[in-house]
Amino acid sequence: MSHRATMDDLVSLRRDLHRHPEPAWREFYTTARLVDELETRDLDALYVGPEILDADERMAVPDDAEIDAWVERAREAGAREDVLDRLAGGYTGAVAVVERGEGPTVGLRVDIDGLPITESEDGDHLPTAEGFRSENEGFMHACGHDAHATIGLGVLDAVLDSDFEGTFKVFFQPSEELVAGGKAVAEGGHLDDVDYLLALHVGLDHPTGEVVCGIDGFLAVSHFRAEFTGAPAHAGAKPEEGKNANLAAAAAVQNLYGISRHSDGATRVNVGLMGGGTATNIVAEEAFIEGEVRGATTELMEYMEDRAHTVIESAAAMHDCEVEIGVEGKAPSARSDDALAAIVGGVSEGVEGVDSILDRDDLGGSEDATYLMQRVQDHGGLAAYVGVGTDHPGGHHTRTFDVDEATIRIAVDVLAGSVERIAADRP
Amino acid sequence: MSHRATMDDLVSLRRDLHRHPEPAWREFYTTARLVDELETRDLDALYVGPEILDADERMAVPDDAEIDAWVERAREAGAREDVLDRLAGGYTGAVAVVERGEGPTVGLRVDIDGLPITESEDGDHLPTAEGFRSENEGFMHACGHDAHATIGLGVLDAVLDSDFEGTFKVFFQPSEELVAGGKAVAEGGHLDDVDYLLALHVGLDHPTGEVVCGIDGFLAVSHFRAEFTGAPAHAGAKPEEGKNANLAAAAAVQNLYGISRHSDGATRVNVGLMGGGTATNIVAEEAFIEGEVRGATTELMEYMEDRAHTVIESAAAMHDCEVEIGVEGKAPSARSDDALAAIVGGVSEGVEGVDSILDRDDLGGSEDATYLMQRVQDHGGLAAYVGVGTDHPGGHHTRTFDVDEATIRIAVDVLAGSVERIAADRP
Amino acid sequence: MSHRATMDDLVSLRRDLHRHPEPAWREFYTTARLVDELETRDLDALYVGPEILDADERMAVPDDAEIDAWVERAREAGAREDVLDRLAGGYTGAVAVVERGEGPTVGLRVDIDGLPITESEDGDHLPTAEGFRSENEGFMHACGHDAHATIGLGVLDAVLDSDFEGTFKVFFQPSEELVAGGKAVAEGGHLDDVDYLLALHVGLDHPTGEVVCGIDGFLAVSHFRAEFTGAPAHAGAKPEEGKNANLAAAAAVQNLYGISRHSDGATRVNVGLMGGGTATNIVAEEAFIEGEVRGATTELMEYMEDRAHTVIESAAAMHDCEVEIGVEGKAPSARSDDALAAIVGGVSEGVEGVDSILDRDDLGGSEDATYLMQRVQDHGGLAAYVGVGTDHPGGHHTRTFDVDEATIRIAVDVLAGSVERIAADRP
Amino acid sequence: MSHRATMDDLVSLRRDLHRHPEPAWREFYTTARLVDELETRDLDALYVGPEILDADERMAVPDDAEIDAWVERAREAGAREDVLDRLAGGYTGAVAVVERGEGPTVGLRVDIDGLPITESEDGDHLPTAEGFRSENEGFMHACGHDAHATIGLGVLDAVLDSDFEGTFKVFFQPSEELVAGGKAVAEGGHLDDVDYLLALHVGLDHPTGEVVCGIDGFLAVSHFRAEFTGAPAHAGAKPEEGKNANLAAAAAVQNLYGISRHSDGATRVNVGLMGGGTATNIVAEEAFIEGEVRGATTELMEYMEDRAHTVIESAAAMHDCEVEIGVEGKAPSARSDDALAAIVGGVSEGVEGVDSILDRDDLGGSEDATYLMQRVQDHGGLAAYVGVGTDHPGGHHTRTFDVDEATIRIAVDVLAGSVERIAADRP
Repeated sequence: MSHRATMDDLVSLRRDLHRHPEPAWREFYTTARLVDELETRDLDALYVGPEILDADERMAVPDDAEIDAWVERAREAGAREDVLDRLAGGYTGAVAVVERGEGPTVGLRVDIDGLPITESEDGDHLPTAEGFRSENEGFMHACGHDAHATIGLGVLDAVLDSDFEGTFKVFFQPSEELVAGGKAVAEGGHLDDVDYLLALHVGLDHPTGEVVCGIDGFLAVSHFRAEFTGAPAHAGAKPEEGKNANLAAAAAVQNLYGISRHSDGATRVNVGLMGGGTATNIVAEEAFIEGEVRGATTELMEYMEDRAHTVIESAAAMHDCEVEIGVEGKAPSARSDDALAAIVGGVSEGVEGVDSILDRDDLGGSEDATYLMQRVQDHGGLAAYVGVGTDHPGGHHTRTFDVDEATIRIAVDVLAGSVERIAADRP
Repeated sequence: MSHRATMDDLVSLRRDLHRHPEPAWREFYTTARLVDELETRDLDALYVGPEILDADERMAVPDDAEIDAWVERAREAGAREDVLDRLAGGYTGAVAVVERGEGPTVGLRVDIDGLPITESEDGDHLPTAEGFRSENEGFMHACGHDAHATIGLGVLDAVLDSDFEGTFKVFFQPSEELVAGGKAVAEGGHLDDVDYLLALHVGLDHPTGEVVCGIDGFLAVSHFRAEFTGAPAHAGAKPEEGKNANLAAAAAVQNLYGISRHSDGATRVNVGLMGGGTATNIVAEEAFIEGEVRGATTELMEYMEDRAHTVIESAAAMHDCEVEIGVEGKAPSARSDDALAAIVGGVSEGVEGVDSILDRDDLGGSEDATYLMQRVQDHGGLAAYVGVGTDHPGGHHTRTFDVDEATIRIAVDVLAGSVERIAADRP
Repeated sequence: MSHRATMDDLVSLRRDLHRHPEPAWREFYTTARLVDELETRDLDALYVGPEILDADERMAVPDDAEIDAWVERAREAGAREDVLDRLAGGYTGAVAVVERGEGPTVGLRVDIDGLPITESEDGDHLPTAEGFRSENEGFMHACGHDAHATIGLGVLDAVLDSDFEGTFKVFFQPSEELVAGGKAVAEGGHLDDVDYLLALHVGLDHPTGEVVCGIDGFLAVSHFRAEFTGAPAHAGAKPEEGKNANLAAAAAVQNLYGISRHSDGATRVNVGLMGGGTATNIVAEEAFIEGEVRGATTELMEYMEDRAHTVIESAAAMHDCEVEIGVEGKAPSARSDDALAAIVGGVSEGVEGVDSILDRDDLGGSEDATYLMQRVQDHGGLAAYVGVGTDHPGGHHTRTFDVDEATIRIAVDVLAGSVERIAADRP
Repeated sequence: MSHRATMDDLVSLRRDLHRHPEPAWREFYTTARLVDELETRDLDALYVGPEILDADERMAVPDDAEIDAWVERAREAGAREDVLDRLAGGYTGAVAVVERGEGPTVGLRVDIDGLPITESEDGDHLPTAEGFRSENEGFMHACGHDAHATIGLGVLDAVLDSDFEGTFKVFFQPSEELVAGGKAVAEGGHLDDVDYLLALHVGLDHPTGEVVCGIDGFLAVSHFRAEFTGAPAHAGAKPEEGKNANLAAAAAVQNLYGISRHSDGATRVNVGLMGGGTATNIVAEEAFIEGEVRGATTELMEYMEDRAHTVIESAAAMHDCEVEIGVEGKAPSARSDDALAAIVGGVSEGVEGVDSILDRDDLGGSEDATYLMQRVQDHGGLAAYVGVGTDHPGGHHTRTFDVDEATIRIAVDVLAGSVERIAADRP
């Protein structure tokens, strides 16, 4: 018999996860904690770490020293050694599977990583007031993924406790904040038999009690990092011997912003980070820029990406430098299917606490759930990205972000109800 | 028996040339007028137009319509039809040769072209006051080449009238102002047996009565013209279809000025002219830049030229454009040989009106006499570039430049005396 | 009794106008020809040239020499001297007014200028085959404004011939192609009592028989011209004395394209034209850039315009230059009112030859009819921009553009019917 | 009676200093070690730390945490607590004064700081082989200032042991490597009565046994650091709200390199360091560039500095950012006086081991001894910068640089002899 968490259990779990935020590919404590819970349920399969994804498709994987430091931190926070062993090599995340007779395969995707933001110490900030502020100083669950993971478990329990017939999979996906984990999970094999997929986000400026049945308007995105290598020289004595990596990088920055707008829709470009050089009197041998391009469609993002690479390579050539361009994160655009959104809407009408139901809204940002949605849609399945409102005092990705915990119960009811209805209706 | 011009004749000739300034490769009247004079002398050979140069090495040759217009203008000014026939195809300039027994071959190089500058109409400007202001409106002898050509004839007469033994050649070189004629004349064959070469410039901020025996400090120079070709597009409706030639040209300009200074000596870069596009709402299909690089040595100029080509080609590639780069003018650096300069100094001491003799001075600009000097020096000969001062009211290349005609006699005496002494001393 | 043109008359008029395309602010023949026609109608008022607009608000007015040349050309083509007198000073266009009892004031706006495009000489191009190709070589009615003016007259005749009650005004607006005339006409006073305004465009990739009742999606636009003034210097001898206008212009171009995209909607920027400098070896004293910014709304265009001015001024300051920025054309965004569009749709259903009616479509470009629409809407009136399809062999603004003349009758019926219905219904 | 160091003592001191290299303004151990020595001499005054300079003129002073760390490191290495107390607040360096009867005041300036370079661990590198490799890992005496300080003491001893009459001051100057200490010492008061000043550098690609009597060709230099502040924004959701500090910095870099060359002589510009931003998807709020300008004369450096500030400020304005520009180091140009150089040459002829004497050579780099030289010359004194050759296996500022210790004795003899002769001859 499977254990079913009470709402108090879920709140407690969420607060524990909130105390231990871990950035992309470093969700060791988080995964171990979820495994602790999942093992007490009546699952048919539980995959963790390397078993859930295609290792070659991971992006922005930290170096070993960084990974080791976070494993150690997880260990000190109480993560089970046997689970940490299964995650060796920088693999995180889990997929839980239950099979309940004949019926379609329904998936739910939640993400689990935190952000490199220092959490507010202000007394008005509930986690601080209630004592579950981040213990990993400089990192924070500032986007609600602690709630997402918790809701994932809650939905699993509710489905196990229902008349659901079919197969249900919960994807606890790592590394969404860098859009670096979605592709690897999408190509990990566990999506291939999924007929219907729901993905979840809380908040997004919608208040507690509001549900958005199908979110669209994902900007496809690609993160790049370009490393320029020139040659150093004494800037006073032999400037002509230098191959100026700083100048190459500056020319790239200037011209990246000059990539033409596109008449097919919105595009974006940003060089968020740059750096280079060692001393005022040395022509810089090395410089880097790190940034992103986006598009309202995957095609528009790829248009920007192609142009960006040309600009960067030409800027390097212009100043006689070499350049290596790496892709550090990526997500396509996607669209929520009407049929699934309609079911979410119908279910939501009957959920206590829901007082506003929106058919559609635009995300206006990027998300790598789109890789998973696309995977399902590509083989003929349906997918929807569901928004469950929450009163959040600070904006997403700010130091005072927090989740109204009443949202947890609402989200569990909306999503578990939808999973059951989808399996029954096979839309 | 050869006719010898009086000083009055020479002044009269200089004023006639001054009235008919002709820019590079368009010196039709000038050449015809010189031929008129030269044919009355006892020459052993007179080469004109295509006979004096290597046609393939001409740079910045105007198009046919432009050439035809200047031929017609020369015809109207009284140029002889048979001479114009010999210049057909845009060839100008002349080489006069006299052979007087056994002895070395000595050359004198003078240049003959004018500038696209509108001459002052001010009453204080002597050519205006005396009625010999330019009749080719918009063009002017603003650098003294009218005097140079005249002095060339004067020296020829003086040498013919002397005890000179050997061969003497006067090179009336076209197209110096664009540094576009020197290379073609240098490779035209007539320099190959020259043992000693003198070249002349009046003025250069030296007063009447001052002689500079050997000028150095020529900046080697290369003129380039880059034509960018992209693709047009409606800037509102389909901006992404454009390949923006204006943007490529702007990126080139920005980065050309960023070519590193060189520790071996002075360098220069300038984009003097640019243009592109057809309408505000069309992404520009075509753009061009025209400019120059210089260096204190030929190597430094070539360093700049190499880097400039890389910048231009990369700027085109950066914005998906094609580019063609043409060289429109070029001159190496050069150095006056001490032995010749010493002879010029010695002769100058005995010339009436000379009251200041400088061994050396720097030009600080560019000149394509350097091609001729280098040609002679490369096969073991000696060369010197001689400055003969003149009180000039306005600076070189300004609307009020003028030559103190007393300089003509001084220059003839200094140069003719030097030619004789060189032939006698064979330094 | 007013003369009413037959369809043959209208076709003949359109072909005459087609033979005499005149660019912005130079529509002298066109205006005179229209006045010839209009004077034979039973008008209550006919305003021409300076009487129809606010002279201070004209943009991109050509210089006197240019205007004089086109007046002379119009005279030679047969324009009446007394009309040309009324247009003195570079004023063109006309407003015809008829008052027919009590009722609202309805306006119709058509534009009359041609483009600087050389018309195709191909035998497949109907104007060439039929002998009404442009007689103003290098200029062409390549956007159908010849048909627009003709339709304006046709609608006037039809309204005069109908039961219309109220006041009807036809605005023959000059200088739309440069978006340089709309603002002056909008502020000329004749719009102030207009309750309903229709504007017309033929074609726009809609075939003959298709009507678009209300066009939206106008990109607001602003044309700028920036003139940079620095200081000249010899690029070899004294480069540091130059204030490099070419470099300032290039920095402006590079950074204009770098103005950030806007999350509120589409924006555009283009530097269509640039130029500068006088010689390769002179640091450029003067340079200019000419371009445009656009936005999906007037606010977005103004965001771009503000940022563009900052960039241009900073680029000048950066290289120690002065700059003057002029606005050479401008148009806001606008929206067609539903109530008018509905009437146009209803009327179109009954017009012979109309086989497809679209409620809405996006222009995706710019138009200064928006100034007139906004003027009417600002004082509480309604406005709609109506598209009447025409089979055009070449695209707008291409050498092979042509209008299917069957469109003229359809457009007259749709618009005259709408004017009558609007006056009757007063929506 | 004053202690006089033997050559063995001096070598031992030099090796001790070499083991403890300290970067600019952090020479705590070095100063304390020198004070240990100096206190055993018969001095008339010994000034240390804040007593030797004008505190307001210090540049590039590290923050307190950095200073505290180096004080602690010096303490652990054995620096005397009472001396460290006198250096509190980040003051280093010393001035030793001896008065020996009537006579002029002669100064000797040596510098004492190390570099942030990791010393070679190769067995061929003598300090490694002999066990005096740097104990401050990552820092190294890679320019011979350990020898300079040692020679300063040796010359003091030799002068004390001679017939010198007058006042002799040795300036142990901190922070030369950042050209950040010279100005403060020059304005500290101790130079004001100095009639003659000698400054010293070993090596400079001259072999052991070669002396350069008067070095010239100092490039005047100014180090700048510009900090750009814009506004952050989400690059996908609200890019228009960002004020892009990275873009401002890139525009500055591009245009700094475009500052025109100068016809009066060599100039330099380099942006050696740059950085900015926090995340790929955030418009960068902050960025910085750090670099330098140089000129063959102080005027040329100031021309570059003026232009650089204009470029940086305009780049900030262009992208709506603020910028603060700080000067982090500075040195004028200077010239060695002939009269002093002649004395150095004369003395060198009699010094054992000197086998080559050069009157003049160009430094081709920058040095802030020029501030001290200028100070003396400005009040009518004379100054010379003396080079004493040393066989150095690696170049200056490389990991394998080392000083041939035979140079120490030669330099002491040349300089002490020159000090005596100067006092005697009063040139």
